[in-house]
Amino acid sequence: MKTILLNNRPQGKPTTSNFKVVKEDKILSINKGEILLEAAYVSVDPYLRGRMSDAKSYVPPFELNKPVQSGVVAKVIVSNNEKFAEGDYVSGLLNWQTQQVSTGEGLTIVDENKAPLSAYLGILGMTGLTAFLGLQEIGKPKAGETIVISGAAGAVGSVVGQIAKILGLHVIGIAGTDEKIDLLKSKFGFDAGINYNTSSDINADIKKLAPNGVDIYFDNVGGAISDSVLVNINRFARIIICGAISTYNETEASKGIRVQTTLVKNSALMQGFIVSDFAAKFPAAIQQLATWLGAGKLTYTETIVEGFDNIPNAFIDLFEGKNKGKMIVKI
Amino acid sequence: MKTILLNNRPQGKPTTSNFKVVKEDKILSINKGEILLEAAYVSVDPYLRGRMSDAKSYVPPFELNKPVQSGVVAKVIVSNNEKFAEGDYVSGLLNWQTQQVSTGEGLTIVDENKAPLSAYLGILGMTGLTAFLGLQEIGKPKAGETIVISGAAGAVGSVVGQIAKILGLHVIGIAGTDEKIDLLKSKFGFDAGINYNTSSDINADIKKLAPNGVDIYFDNVGGAISDSVLVNINRFARIIICGAISTYNETEASKGIRVQTTLVKNSALMQGFIVSDFAAKFPAAIQQLATWLGAGKLTYTETIVEGFDNIPNAFIDLFEGKNKGKMIVKI
Repeated sequence: MKTILLNNRPQGKPTTSNFKVVKEDKILSINKGEILLEAAYVSVDPYLRGRMSDAKSYVPPFELNKPVQSGVVAKVIVSNNEKFAEGDYVSGLLNWQTQQVSTGEGLTIVDENKAPLSAYLGILGMTGLTAFLGLQEIGKPKAGETIVISGAAGAVGSVVGQIAKILGLHVIGIAGTDEKIDLLKSKFGFDAGINYNTSSDINADIKKLAPNGVDIYFDNVGGAISDSVLVNINRFARIIICGAISTYNETEASKGIRVQTTLVKNSALMQGFIVSDFAAKFPAAIQQLATWLGAGKLTYTETIVEGFDNIPNAFIDLFEGKNKGKMIVKI
Repeated sequence: MKTILLNNRPQGKPTTSNFKVVKEDKILSINKGEILLEAAYVSVDPYLRGRMSDAKSYVPPFELNKPVQSGVVAKVIVSNNEKFAEGDYVSGLLNWQTQQVSTGEGLTIVDENKAPLSAYLGILGMTGLTAFLGLQEIGKPKAGETIVISGAAGAVGSVVGQIAKILGLHVIGIAGTDEKIDLLKSKFGFDAGINYNTSSDINADIKKLAPNGVDIYFDNVGGAISDSVLVNINRFARIIICGAISTYNETEASKGIRVQTTLVKNSALMQGFIVSDFAAKFPAAIQQLATWLGAGKLTYTETIVEGFDNIPNAFIDLFEGKNKGKMIVKI
């Protein structure tokens, strides 16, 4: 069996040397109430970067020389727990390990026949929940409004845009390549897209594409892109801070235009969104997402990398924007 | 009669040359339904600086060569409107004019016997409403929580602190002189104060005075002071952006530490507060404020400047922090 440990804490951009793949020749045994799991799909997500540093945050940091954890779909290969049968697939927060023992606590059985297993790490997992609940609970979208989404071709962003279209909004996505912009429009039904790498004036582009101003900004990236969006917000705008990937690897606090004057002039709201705060709403949200998915109203993109040893590289590639949609490692 | 016109738009800090006092020898006449008013007290407020520039904002800018407006308490000297009797005092948004004609729309009759007339521009007017509704509606205070207030010795800040004490919070004020800090503690019942002009490390001072972290930040000033407060917020913190006086006179967008990462790490909320958005809650709020005032639970400080011609100087002095509490000009 193999385990990926946090070898040392990334300074700036993570590198493979921050991780250590350990191979052990051991056979795990389980006690009563426990299950033995074999990893099938591992999710890599930008937020994990935060847990790799030891700054104060909403979840404790990963410990050095301990396994990194993320969302994993795993197969039950031995069960001493009546809630799980051998052959079941479960989803939950698990170690980056080929095999591991669990009590089953916090794990959900997922149905391979309803959706592909990887979808339970994406559109029917944290990704879909983050998109849906962030938009609903903080964004409070109303038909006819205009939403701008940064990191729009990412796992969360592409789902936010589709849900916003279902709800009748005018949807503008910001992403970093023309290929991604094409995908936003052709596959995900966005009304318009802005390539922040080739735009000569993002502010002006937003003004042109959102002539009635921006009512909701679903922000996955932070940084200078957000400065341009904020110039264009309407009164009572809602800004969902879902992530700030552009700043995660900075070693000093990122500086930019202060938001306070913009917020007060527009009676606008900016709120940090962490999906786990809304756990009580997960079952209803997953049901809604599954309904839309079943009805063909939602689609998704995955970038699937193969091989346990490639988990660190897949994670690192997130910060280069090499993924389209949800980045998943197939074990 | 005298009128103060906006002569030209301030660039940076306002100066007396931005205003023009015009003296006219004319007797105003009133039509049916109108009243003739004589100004008694004029409120000067930081937010007026915004209306003097022509940037997009929530209220239209003042026009050049037209009278500046603010909250005014005036005496009805002639009435052709059955709702107002001669001798009544009214409060509302009026011109900077010694005498003016009004239809009475938007004016409220105030009772000199219940509270001093100037109080209707302060604790029982926009100042008190801003403090109470900003704290309640966005801050959602809970007993035992810690609040930090910037601009704490200002008109709004000193009321926020007192209400927070009534509600059982631990209250820390930030102000710019030792005299103001003494006043916060001795007169307004704040638990602690920080003088931002003499503190060598505001961040460390907050950490020491708020050992359990900051749950609510009522921000009147913005700028670097806010950077220090934000480092110390707790999960689910609420940040009320009531004003950003430190940046009002800047001619370029103020830059500083980006707030997005802090907000998302703490599931924190930052919201711009404009009191007029909550007009439906004014009557109940004024009743609550009057009850507390009558019970001796609220007190207030005014800086009263005398003389109509001194209105521009009193306004300019706000940006030097020369006021303690509400700045009012007695005509």
